[in-house]
Amino acid sequence: MREIFEAELKQIGTDLADMSRLVEVAIANAGTALLTGDLKMAEAVIVADEAINTLERDLDTRCVHLLAQQAPVATDLRVIVSALRISATLERMGDLARHVAEFARRSYPKLALPQAVSGTFAEMHAAATRVAQRTTSLLETRDVDLATSIDHDDDMLDELHEDNFTAMLGGHWNGTPQQTIDTALLSRYFERFGDHAVSVARRIVYLVSGDFPEDNRPTR
Amino acid sequence: MREIFEAELKQIGTDLADMSRLVEVAIANAGTALLTGDLKMAEAVIVADEAINTLERDLDTRCVHLLAQQAPVATDLRVIVSALRISATLERMGDLARHVAEFARRSYPKLALPQAVSGTFAEMHAAATRVAQRTTSLLETRDVDLATSIDHDDDMLDELHEDNFTAMLGGHWNGTPQQTIDTALLSRYFERFGDHAVSVARRIVYLVSGDFPEDNRPTR
Repeated sequence: MREIFEAELKQIGTDLADMSRLVEVAIANAGTALLTGDLKMAEAVIVADEAINTLERDLDTRCVHLLAQQAPVATDLRVIVSALRISATLERMGDLARHVAEFARRSYPKLALPQAVSGTFAEMHAAATRVAQRTTSLLETRDVDLATSIDHDDDMLDELHEDNFTAMLGGHWNGTPQQTIDTALLSRYFERFGDHAVSVARRIVYLVSGDFPEDNRPTR
Repeated sequence: MREIFEAELKQIGTDLADMSRLVEVAIANAGTALLTGDLKMAEAVIVADEAINTLERDLDTRCVHLLAQQAPVATDLRVIVSALRISATLERMGDLARHVAEFARRSYPKLALPQAVSGTFAEMHAAATRVAQRTTSLLETRDVDLATSIDHDDDMLDELHEDNFTAMLGGHWNGTPQQTIDTALLSRYFERFGDHAVSVARRIVYLVSGDFPEDNRPTR
């Protein structure tokens, strides 16, 4: 009985890493589609989001069944409750990647972003992709040092988010209202993506160490 | 033993309704602060958000303890897992109300929104406040008919959100970049507030009826 339960717990960990890998591909491709105006890539991200949602539903159902059948306590219980929360957060990260792809699709054949912020968004794209890759690695390896680099990249995303507002409000901005709206919302999606990754990382650190670091950093 | 457990389950329901009541006050006051430029009210919303966060943490801790101590199955298990999710969503709704208040505070003594969209935002404020009130009532009464009116108000918030974009992109828009950014983000916060209320309502309907309505409506 215990062996089956162990196998099921392990499977939940594997599924979370699989979900995270899909999120990683989604944000990498959504960012590329946004920056290069690649319509096919944008559409692929939008379609692929459904697979992330399906994985979340399956995982949740199995977690609830495990709670009912095994009545886990202590660490096992923490693992399952954390998995419920991590899967919800990964699903939301997938939604944000899909939103980015939707903006790329809607602007096609034009680029959604004006030249003035494309460099900042290229950096946001790189940071968000790193954050997603490290979230997958953290889920696979439980190497809690990865949480620190996720924090750093999230800080960088916050700074880049501010940079976009500085660019829009600096007096030299000549974007159209559509470009201003898109820049503001897309910047927020990347910034939120980082916040969610930090939340996943904190939950994993809590699982591994039993120590839940409070995140008292300001949110925008 | 069962009696204590019943009392604890009931307390969780009461706490969720209490949280929802705080969210209701938060969005009502945040919207008023935004529309009237009331700095003190905005600051009160920002400070009060901490109470919502604290309630969420307390509630989560008790839910996890109940799972460990009582090993609930069937309906009891569903109630506790749903409470974990509902509290996370209410906490997020509180954050969105706080964001609205933060925009009101930052713009003071000016109003954040240009005249052209103030009517639309007055309607968003009214719809979001109704949504929050009905979420509290739904948590208190389990009257699932309330879920339908929450859906309707959420649809209205989606339409008003579109109206703001139409206003900004219609060619007569003369807002500053700051006003364009603020309008886009604030509109999104109200629209997301409605989405979260729908998510809470769906979970309660599921608890009461065992039937989980899939939300297939498009998201922006």
